Amino acid sequence: MNSLKIVKIGGNIIDDKEALSCFLSHFSKIKSPKILIHGGGILATELANKMNINTKLIEGRRVTDRDTLDIITMVYAGKINKNIITKLQANGTNCVGFSGADGNTIISEKRPVVNVDYGLVGDVKQVNIKVPKLLLDNNITPVFCAISHDEKGQLLNTNADTIASELAINFAALYNVELYYCFEKNGVLLDVNDDVSVIENINKNSYHKLISEGVIADGMLPKLKNCIRAIENHVTKVCIGKPDMLFTTKSKHTTIQA
Amino acid sequence: MNSLKIVKIGGNIIDDKEALSCFLSHFSKIKSPKILIHGGGILATELANKMNINTKLIEGRRVTDRDTLDIITMVYAGKINKNIITKLQANGTNCVGFSGADGNTIISEKRPVVNVDYGLVGDVKQVNIKVPKLLLDNNITPVFCAISHDEKGQLLNTNADTIASELAINFAALYNVELYYCFEKNGVLLDVNDDVSVIENINKNSYHKLISEGVIADGMLPKLKNCIRAIENHVTKVCIGKPDMLFTTKSKHTTIQA
Repeated sequence: MNSLKIVKIGGNIIDDKEALSCFLSHFSKIKSPKILIHGGGILATELANKMNINTKLIEGRRVTDRDTLDIITMVYAGKINKNIITKLQANGTNCVGFSGADGNTIISEKRPVVNVDYGLVGDVKQVNIKVPKLLLDNNITPVFCAISHDEKGQLLNTNADTIASELAINFAALYNVELYYCFEKNGVLLDVNDDVSVIENINKNSYHKLISEGVIADGMLPKLKNCIRAIENHVTKVCIGKPDMLFTTKSKHTTIQA
Repeated sequence: MNSLKIVKIGGNIIDDKEALSCFLSHFSKIKSPKILIHGGGILATELANKMNINTKLIEGRRVTDRDTLDIITMVYAGKINKNIITKLQANGTNCVGFSGADGNTIISEKRPVVNVDYGLVGDVKQVNIKVPKLLLDNNITPVFCAISHDEKGQLLNTNADTIASELAINFAALYNVELYYCFEKNGVLLDVNDDVSVIENINKNSYHKLISEGVIADGMLPKLKNCIRAIENHVTKVCIGKPDMLFTTKSKHTTIQA
């Protein structure tokens, strides 16, 4: 099987023009088939502030009302996605931007209301890889923003990490899929305040031990859940760390394998 | 050769939720391969107002500065395009949204400054139909917004009518292309105040006569120039009128043929 690299980048790259430009230049040089998934960074919040739209938080989590979904759609699928697309083209990588509605690729359902109504947030229900596969087969790189849809005409806000892992799982029958989560740290850290305390290897057994010991907690917990779900579903390996891990062998990072 | 319908819709449909929904439902029922191009309507101006960004006009024409381009990218490629995509999917039409940067499809260059600098406005230089053709061959409908790029990483604001005619011209070697411009009138009118005075047929000869007589003037002039350029470049026919012309044989409209 061919190898496929699926790479997710977050706010620390998207919000920093130079970091993004540098990342895209390196990303373009990856020879194997590849897919990029991007989050939204702070641009959506900035736009909401400019438009005097208040972000509603319930128990610290953002609620996606209609205005917020409009902002997310404009910023993620419009401004960020199209700027990434034109910059990748300038680097010689032919690519096409996707929301989950494009190609009917990421189908989700509105998160059920259990105590809290998160609004227009979608949990992934089904992934159709037909169109992104067609593009990969023709040497074209799909670039996803973190928006899905319900097949009934409603866009939904969906976690970018989850979209990345669900794409990885669905491509795993066709490719040796490597999934890369790029973020601001060197990986999963034994001591969250010590960036050199990287846990270089995690497997299913050590994952459960790290949770019971409280090493994996807070924001890392949902990220790691996505990773474990990916390797349980035939994704070859998942790497977490700074984007350098993609381009040099020297960059310390966490590798999760079965 | 197979037939290909290329359809451009403007603000009168995009700004009216029900009209858009009705149009997309009918558009989905078109059996032959099809491409949709949409303009932006008043949403971009509304967003600029909300954000207190002043639209600069020179000689009555809007100047696209960086803030305006951001707004256009967010509204056209984000909000409008993705809402059309999810609505078409709900109608059973598999589709993918495009800016001109996606698939490197519409390459333009910044309009040269001759007295007036219109800012980040691009004149179409080259069209690559590779990716939209790949999708059409797989029964997937491309949906374009009116944004192009310069291949150097810069998005540019480009006229939607021009994008439609340039796509039509470039597909004319492969398909019998019919180009449809949907707008708020019944077609080219002999008397601009009389909606039943439709000129039903125009060819190259009558076009020049209508210009010299002043019947084609103002906003119709650039639209008709795009039509004539299309039929001079092997597009089978161009139709101008209300969207009904696509779905009933009764709707009066203007047909332009060589």
